[in-house]
Amino acid sequence: MAKKATKGKMTYYFGKNTEGRGVAKAILGGKGANLAEMTGIGLPVPPGFTITTEVCKAYYDLGGKLPPDLMAEVKSQIGKLEKELGKSFGDSKDPLLVSVRSGAAVSMPGMMDTVLNLGLTDESVQGLAEGTNNERFAYDAYRRLINMYGDVVMGIDHHEFEAAFTKIKKKYKAAYDTDVPAEGLKELCDEYKKVYKRSTKKDFPQDPMEQLELAVEAVFKSWNTPRAIKYREIEGIRGLLGTAVNVQSMVYGNMGDDSATGVMFTRDNTTGNNSLHGDFLVNAQGEDVVAGIRETQHIEEIGQWNKAIEKQLKDIKKTLETHYTDMQDVEFTIERGKLFMLQTRTGKRTGAAAVKIACDMVREKLIDEKTALLRIPAKDLTQLLLPNFDPASKKTATLLTTGLNASPGAAVGKLAFTAAEAESRSAAGEKVILVRHETSPEDVNGMWAAQGILTSTGGRTSHAAVVAVGWGKCCVAGAKEISINEKARTITVNGKTLTHNDTISLDGTTGEVMLGDVETIHPELGGDFGKVMKWADKYRKLGIRTNADTPADSQRARDFGAEGIGLCRTEHMFFEGERIVAVREMILSETEPERRKALKKLLPIQRKDFVGIFTAMQGLPVTVRLLDPPLHEFVPHEEAAQKELADHMGVTLQVVKDRVSQLHESNPMLGHRGCRLSITYPEILEMQVQAIVEAAILCHKKKVKTKPEIMIPLVGTFKELKLLREKVEETIASTIAAKKFEGKLDILIGTMIEIPRAALTADEVAEHADFFSFGTNDLTQMTFGYSRDDTGSFLPDYLRKDILHVDPFESLDQTGVGQLVEMGVTKGRSAKPDLKVGICGEHGGDPSSIDFCHRVGLNYVSCSPFRVPIARLAAAQAALRNA
Amino acid sequence: MAKKATKGKMTYYFGKNTEGRGVAKAILGGKGANLAEMTGIGLPVPPGFTITTEVCKAYYDLGGKLPPDLMAEVKSQIGKLEKELGKSFGDSKDPLLVSVRSGAAVSMPGMMDTVLNLGLTDESVQGLAEGTNNERFAYDAYRRLINMYGDVVMGIDHHEFEAAFTKIKKKYKAAYDTDVPAEGLKELCDEYKKVYKRSTKKDFPQDPMEQLELAVEAVFKSWNTPRAIKYREIEGIRGLLGTAVNVQSMVYGNMGDDSATGVMFTRDNTTGNNSLHGDFLVNAQGEDVVAGIRETQHIEEIGQWNKAIEKQLKDIKKTLETHYTDMQDVEFTIERGKLFMLQTRTGKRTGAAAVKIACDMVREKLIDEKTALLRIPAKDLTQLLLPNFDPASKKTATLLTTGLNASPGAAVGKLAFTAAEAESRSAAGEKVILVRHETSPEDVNGMWAAQGILTSTGGRTSHAAVVAVGWGKCCVAGAKEISINEKARTITVNGKTLTHNDTISLDGTTGEVMLGDVETIHPELGGDFGKVMKWADKYRKLGIRTNADTPADSQRARDFGAEGIGLCRTEHMFFEGERIVAVREMILSETEPERRKALKKLLPIQRKDFVGIFTAMQGLPVTVRLLDPPLHEFVPHEEAAQKELADHMGVTLQVVKDRVSQLHESNPMLGHRGCRLSITYPEILEMQVQAIVEAAILCHKKKVKTKPEIMIPLVGTFKELKLLREKVEETIASTIAAKKFEGKLDILIGTMIEIPRAALTADEVAEHADFFSFGTNDLTQMTFGYSRDDTGSFLPDYLRKDILHVDPFESLDQTGVGQLVEMGVTKGRSAKPDLKVGICGEHGGDPSSIDFCHRVGLNYVSCSPFRVPIARLAAAQAALRNA
Repeated sequence: MAKKATKGKMTYYFGKNTEGRGVAKAILGGKGANLAEMTGIGLPVPPGFTITTEVCKAYYDLGGKLPPDLMAEVKSQIGKLEKELGKSFGDSKDPLLVSVRSGAAVSMPGMMDTVLNLGLTDESVQGLAEGTNNERFAYDAYRRLINMYGDVVMGIDHHEFEAAFTKIKKKYKAAYDTDVPAEGLKELCDEYKKVYKRSTKKDFPQDPMEQLELAVEAVFKSWNTPRAIKYREIEGIRGLLGTAVNVQSMVYGNMGDDSATGVMFTRDNTTGNNSLHGDFLVNAQGEDVVAGIRETQHIEEIGQWNKAIEKQLKDIKKTLETHYTDMQDVEFTIERGKLFMLQTRTGKRTGAAAVKIACDMVREKLIDEKTALLRIPAKDLTQLLLPNFDPASKKTATLLTTGLNASPGAAVGKLAFTAAEAESRSAAGEKVILVRHETSPEDVNGMWAAQGILTSTGGRTSHAAVVAVGWGKCCVAGAKEISINEKARTITVNGKTLTHNDTISLDGTTGEVMLGDVETIHPELGGDFGKVMKWADKYRKLGIRTNADTPADSQRARDFGAEGIGLCRTEHMFFEGERIVAVREMILSETEPERRKALKKLLPIQRKDFVGIFTAMQGLPVTVRLLDPPLHEFVPHEEAAQKELADHMGVTLQVVKDRVSQLHESNPMLGHRGCRLSITYPEILEMQVQAIVEAAILCHKKKVKTKPEIMIPLVGTFKELKLLREKVEETIASTIAAKKFEGKLDILIGTMIEIPRAALTADEVAEHADFFSFGTNDLTQMTFGYSRDDTGSFLPDYLRKDILHVDPFESLDQTGVGQLVEMGVTKGRSAKPDLKVGICGEHGGDPSSIDFCHRVGLNYVSCSPFRVPIARLAAAQAALRNA
Repeated sequence: MAKKATKGKMTYYFGKNTEGRGVAKAILGGKGANLAEMTGIGLPVPPGFTITTEVCKAYYDLGGKLPPDLMAEVKSQIGKLEKELGKSFGDSKDPLLVSVRSGAAVSMPGMMDTVLNLGLTDESVQGLAEGTNNERFAYDAYRRLINMYGDVVMGIDHHEFEAAFTKIKKKYKAAYDTDVPAEGLKELCDEYKKVYKRSTKKDFPQDPMEQLELAVEAVFKSWNTPRAIKYREIEGIRGLLGTAVNVQSMVYGNMGDDSATGVMFTRDNTTGNNSLHGDFLVNAQGEDVVAGIRETQHIEEIGQWNKAIEKQLKDIKKTLETHYTDMQDVEFTIERGKLFMLQTRTGKRTGAAAVKIACDMVREKLIDEKTALLRIPAKDLTQLLLPNFDPASKKTATLLTTGLNASPGAAVGKLAFTAAEAESRSAAGEKVILVRHETSPEDVNGMWAAQGILTSTGGRTSHAAVVAVGWGKCCVAGAKEISINEKARTITVNGKTLTHNDTISLDGTTGEVMLGDVETIHPELGGDFGKVMKWADKYRKLGIRTNADTPADSQRARDFGAEGIGLCRTEHMFFEGERIVAVREMILSETEPERRKALKKLLPIQRKDFVGIFTAMQGLPVTVRLLDPPLHEFVPHEEAAQKELADHMGVTLQVVKDRVSQLHESNPMLGHRGCRLSITYPEILEMQVQAIVEAAILCHKKKVKTKPEIMIPLVGTFKELKLLREKVEETIASTIAAKKFEGKLDILIGTMIEIPRAALTADEVAEHADFFSFGTNDLTQMTFGYSRDDTGSFLPDYLRKDILHVDPFESLDQTGVGQLVEMGVTKGRSAKPDLKVGICGEHGGDPSSIDFCHRVGLNYVSCSPFRVPIARLAAAQAALRNA
C-alpha cells in the first residue's frame, strides 16, 4: 500500500493538493503520514507539510547539519501554505503561524519536542493582535513561543521562564495564568526575551524563517537525546531513519469560550468499551491537556458544551475506524466553534482493551478473526492475567483517596519521590510506587522501575497515563487530595502523613489509593479472552506446555490452557522443609551406601510430589528433569547452619566445612552439575527415576493416567546420554519388577539441549533420545559466554551502546543461539525423523522467540504458567504471519 | 597391502604352508601377523597358529562365550602342528607343548597374559622328561605351567605359589630357583597342584585340549581387565576388535648352558645408534628376561657366548630391517644351540632415537625423507627439547649410585614407594619418583603419574624400561645397590637412608641417581634434529608461531624456528614488580580521569615491553592480545595486602574491600573480561594501543622492523569488534599524529574467536577483522560447558568411563569444537576471502589438533616455544598425510 518516496523530495505538502498520501510511514513518520491521510479522506486538518525522516538521517550523516537545499524547499512549501490560507509568514497584519512537531514512524509519546506559534515576532505579534482582535491572546501566544522556543530549541532552563512568570503573576495579583491581563503578558514577553538573551547571548530571532530552521534542527536533535534513546531501548524500537518534522498551520483552542482543545481515543483504551474516551479543555492549547496541568473534562461531557461538535466527533470516529479499521488516538482543536483534527494514530491500549476491541471489531465485521489475533500484542495479555486486589482484603483496607483510573492493574509498594529514587530502590530489590505531581519524559526510567505510578495532577491522557498504559503498568493519576512534599519525602492525604517507608496499594482499575499491603487474587478468565484463546488454538501449530514444579502450578497452567509440563525441575522439591536435611546428609556422605541411605529418605517425598503433579496433569505429558544444580547450592554456607548440620549428622563442624569447601567451584555454571552429577553419583538418578516410576504406578492404581518423560540435563556428548539412558531403563525395569506392576507405563527418555556441543552433535545425541528440549537459558549463557549472574557489570552498557538490541536472556538471539537451535533440530531429525523437539528456557514465553520456534519447526514451547496464554496467542500469530 | 580375512575363518596357521601372510594386523594382531610374516621371509620361527581378533569380538558379543565351532578348528590346527613337528599333544613320550599369548593389532607391552608349556600333564611331563632326557627341566616346565595357568587362567593369588616355592627352597637349602633339584621340583609340582585345588576346588586339568580352551578364554578375558583398559586410555588406542591369540609350539632357552633367551632391538632404542641393543640370559625362559628378575647380559656380549648365534642375529637384523624398513624389537630363544625367533614388532624408541634412526635410514637409503618425517612421533620431540641436568650442578651433586640408563631424560622428585602413592601424591601436586624393586602392569598408573622411575632390579628390556621408553619418561633400572624397604618407606644406598620426604635426581641418559634437586639446562639442538626440522619446513603448509610474552621467550621460540608470535598476552606484563601497583590504582579509580592517571604510569612500561619483543622478533608478526582477564585477578584478596594498597592510595581499607567485593563474580569465566573490559573502560585499550604504536615508532627509529597485530579478545558479536576497531584505529592515528611520525606502520587489527557465537557469526565478524585467531581453550570451555578450573570433579571419571577419549583441553575435540572452528574459517572467508586465520590455544602444539588445523585450512598454528619443533614436524606430517 505504501508508495515509495519521490527521489530527492524532502518535503510533502498536505492540504489542497496533498502530496504525501500513501507515502510510507518510514518516510513521513506516523504523524505526517496520518495528517496526509486524514486530509485525503476529507477530515478538517489545518494544512501544512512534512519534512521526511530521510532528512533527519541526512542531518546525522552530515555530522549534524541540515542538507543544503532543504530550506529552499521549505520556503516553497511555506509559500503554498501562505497561498492556501491567504496569510503570510511574519506578516505584520494577519501572520501565518505554524507548529513544528516531531513524528517518527513509530509513536513515541512525550518523547519528542514541539514548538507552537512559530512565526511570531515583535512585529507580527501586533498583526496577530489585530487579526484576532485579541491582544491578550496574541501576547499569550508570543510568550508561549518564546518560552517553548527557548526551552526546546535553545536549551534554556525552563525554571528561568517560570520564575519570570511568577514575578508577573505576583505583580498583577493573578492566581492563575489566565488571570494575567494583556498588559502583563506583554511585559512577560519582554521579560522572556531578556531571559532568552541572558542565556543565549543573542536576541530572540525576529526572522520567521530563521525560527523555523532552528526549530527543525531542534526536532532532529531531539531524536538522539538520552531519554529518546532509552525509550527506544525499552520498547525495542530500531531500524528507523529518524524523525520527520511536521510544519502545520496553527489553530487555536484558546481563542475564547467557543474554542477548546482535546485528546480522544475512539474507544476506551483502558477497558475497550466502544465509547469516546479522553479529555478536553475549553479555551486552552493542546499542551495544557497532555501536560495535565489543568483539570480536564471527560470527553463524554463535550455535548453539554457543544452538541454539534459532539456529533462531528462521533462521525469522525466512525470515518477513522472504517478507514483504519482500528481504534484511533486523535488530537483536535476547536477554534471559535470550528473543529480541526491535528493528529490521528493507532491508539495504545491495555491488554484488556486490545482483547475487547479486537473481539468487538470482529462482531462489527470491521476485521476478521485472523486480523483480530494479529492485533493483540501477545505480551500484553499478561495484564489480564495479573492479580487484582482481593475484594475482601480491600473492604478492610484504609482508603486514602481516589484518583483517576488511568491505567488498570494492582500495584503495591513503598513511596518513592523521584525517578532516580524509584530506580535505585528497585534495583536494590524494593517494590516502590513512584509518586509525582505530574511526570515528564525525564521520569521514564523511574516509571519503568516502579510497580505503579501515582500523580496528584493530570488526567487520563497525561504523560503518566499514556506511558503507563503503553507499558501495561498500573497508574492512578490526578489524585488531587494528595499533597506531596518531595523534599521531606512525605505525602499528606486527608490528614494522614506517609513517609518513604510506608506502603500503599494502587488500584489502577478503580483509581483507589489504599494504605498498606492489600492482598491480591487471580482474575477470572472467559468471555472475549476465552474467545481469543479459542481462535488462537485454531490457528497455532505449536504445542504449549508449562514449566511447573508443584501440583498448584500445574493446575494453574492447565487452567490457562497448558497441554503438558515441559519442564518440571526436581531441585526445587529438594529445598522444602525437612527434605533439605536429607539432601544435605546425602551430599555429605562419604560412601555410596551412606548416600543411598540418605536418598532412601528422599524417595517417598519425591514420589508424593510426582503423584501430585501427575494427578494435576491427568495424563498430559510431564517432563521431569533430573537433578541439575551443583551440589554446593544445597549445603549451608553460614557457620551456624553448618554446625547444626554437623550436630544432626554426628560429625564435627570441620567435616562439614571441608565438604562445603571441597564442593566450591570457580565457575559453578560450568562445573559439576546436570548429568555430570548422575555420572558420578548414579544413585541419585536411580532414586529419582524410582520415585517417578512408583508414582506412575500409584496413579495407575487410582486410574489416573500418566505420561512421564524423563529428561537428562546438560548433556554435551552422546555417550553421557547413552550411559544414563541405560541406567534409567534399568531402573525403570527393576522398579516395575520390584512392584510386580503388570500394567503399561509409557515413559519417554530424552535430553535437554543446552550445551553448544550437544546442538553441534545433535545427530549423535538423537540416537539415544526420544525427545529434545532446548534449554535456551544455559545455551545462551554458553553461546555468548555470559554468566547471567554477572552480566550486570556490562550488559546495560551493551544495550545502551546498541551492541545488543535486546537482552538475549529475554528474547532469543536468533542470529547466534538460534543457529544452534536450528542445527539441533535439523541434525536431530536427520538421525531420528520423528524426534519430538521443544523449548523450555524462559524464551518459551517470549512472542518473538515463539515466532522463531514456529519457524524452525519445534513441536512445542514451554513457559511459566502465567505466560501460557501469551504463548498460545503468539504461536497463533506466528502461524498466521508465516503462513 | 593387507589382505582381507577369509570369511568365517577363525584361525591361521604359520609354519609349513603359512596361511596368514598379508592378512591385516587388525585381524591377526601385531604379533600374529609378524609371526606369519617372519615365517614367510624364511626366518626360523617355531610353528603355530593364530586365533583372530574377530573371535575375541565374537566372544564378547556372545556375552563371554567362545564361538561354538572354534575348538573344532583349533583341534584341526593342532593336528597340523603335530604333523609338522612329529609330536603329539598330551603325548606320554615326546609331547607337543605350546605357548598361548595374546596379541592385539597395537602392541601393549606387559598388558596381556601369557601361558607357557601348555600341554603338560602328569602323564606327558614324564614324556617330556624322557624326550629331553632331563627330568629337572621337565618338572621345572610343569611347575611353571601350573603356576602361570593357576595365576593367569584361574586367577589364583600368585603369592600362594611363591609361598610353596619358598618352602621347597628352604627344604632343599637352595639359594636360587635353579639350585632346586629335579626331586624338589617334582615335589613342588605336587604342592602347586594342591594350591590349585585349594583355590579352584578342581584338579589341575589333565586334558591338554581343556587346558588350551580355558587359556584361550583367559586371553580374551584379559582384553578387558581394568589395567588393559587404562593402558588403551592413556595411549588413546581405540577402535580395535579385541586381541588375537597366538598358539605356538614351545622352544626352550632353559635346556642347559647351550640354550638362552633374549630380547633385542635391532638398533639402540634409547640413542638410535645402529648397534644391537638388548639383553639375554643363558639357560632361562623369556619371562625371566622381561620380568627383570635375574640380572641379564647385554646383547653385545652374546658373541663371547656363541659366535655363530651372534652372526645369525646380525643377519636377521638386516633381513628384518630390509623387510620392514624400520627398527625391530624381537624376542628369540636358543634351544640347544639353535636360534628361534618368537616375535618381531616395530620397536618403541625415544624421541632422540626416532630422529637418529629416521635420519640414518634415509642415509642408508632404506626410506625416503617423507617416510622419515612420518616415522617420528611429533610429540616425542619434547624429549629432545627437555632440559638435561646442568653438568656444573651435577659435579657438585652427591651421586648415590648408578643403574642402567633405561630411558633418557632428567627427573627430580621425592620418593614414592607404591604406584598408588605416586598417583595420589602427584594428584596433590607433588613431584615424585616411583621407586620399585621391579614394576609390573599393575603399576602403570603410578608410573604415568611419576616424574621418573627407579628400579633396583631389571634390565633395559624390563617392564619398567619398555613402558618408560614408550612414554618418553625418564627411567633408571637395575640400580642394584639400592635396597628398598617398602613398609618403612625408605631406601638405603651406600650407607645413606632416604625417606619419602627426600628428593633425588635421576639421569635416565647416564643411569645416575643423585641426592637432592640437581639443576637443569636446555639442550643444544642441531645435527639430525636440524635435518628433520629442515625436511619438515620443506613439506609443511602451516605457518608456525609461538605464544610468548617476554623478549626471552620470543628469542627462545625463534631459536626453535617460530615465524612470529601468535599470542602475546599483555596481562602477564601487568603483574611484574611495581607495575601491579599502578594496575591496582587504575582498577580502584572511581572516575575515568583517575583511571587515565594510573594508566599513564603503565604506558612507558608497556611500551618498553613491546620494544623488547618487537626487537627480538625482528620484523616477524607479533600478535598482541589486549587485556583479557577479569579485573579481580589483579586486586589483592588478603587483608594485609589490601591495607597496604589502601595506604598507598590514601583511601580507607573499606574502600578497597568494597571495590574487591564489587568485582567478585559468580562465574568469572563468563563475566566482565576480554573486550567487555574495553567496552566499559576504553581508556585501557587506548593506553595499550598507544604503547604498541609508540614502541613500533621507537623501533622504526632504530631501524628495527615491526609487524604488530592487535588482537581483541572474547568478541561475541560483530558490533563489539566494530566499535573497538574504530577505537583502535583512532588511537593509532592520534598516536602517530602526536609523535609526528612520518614513516609507515603496518598494523593489522583482528580478533580471537573463542566465544561460540563468534564462530557462528564469523561472516559478520570477519567484516571488521584483518585476522582471526582461534582461542580454542575458551572455545572448548564454552562449547562443552566445562570450566577448566572445575573439571577435576568429573573429568577423570569421564575419561575412565570412556565418555571422552581424551581430555579436550589437551587435544582439540574435532567432532564438536572442531565444527565451530571449521564454521569460523568457512564463514569468515566467505565474507573476506583473504582472511588470515590461526590458532593460539594450547591445541596449537598438539599433533592431532595440528593435523585438523591443516585440514581446515588455517594459515598458522601458535604454541608455546618448546612445542614449536613439534608443531613444525606435525604440520609436515599433516601435509604429507593429507596430500
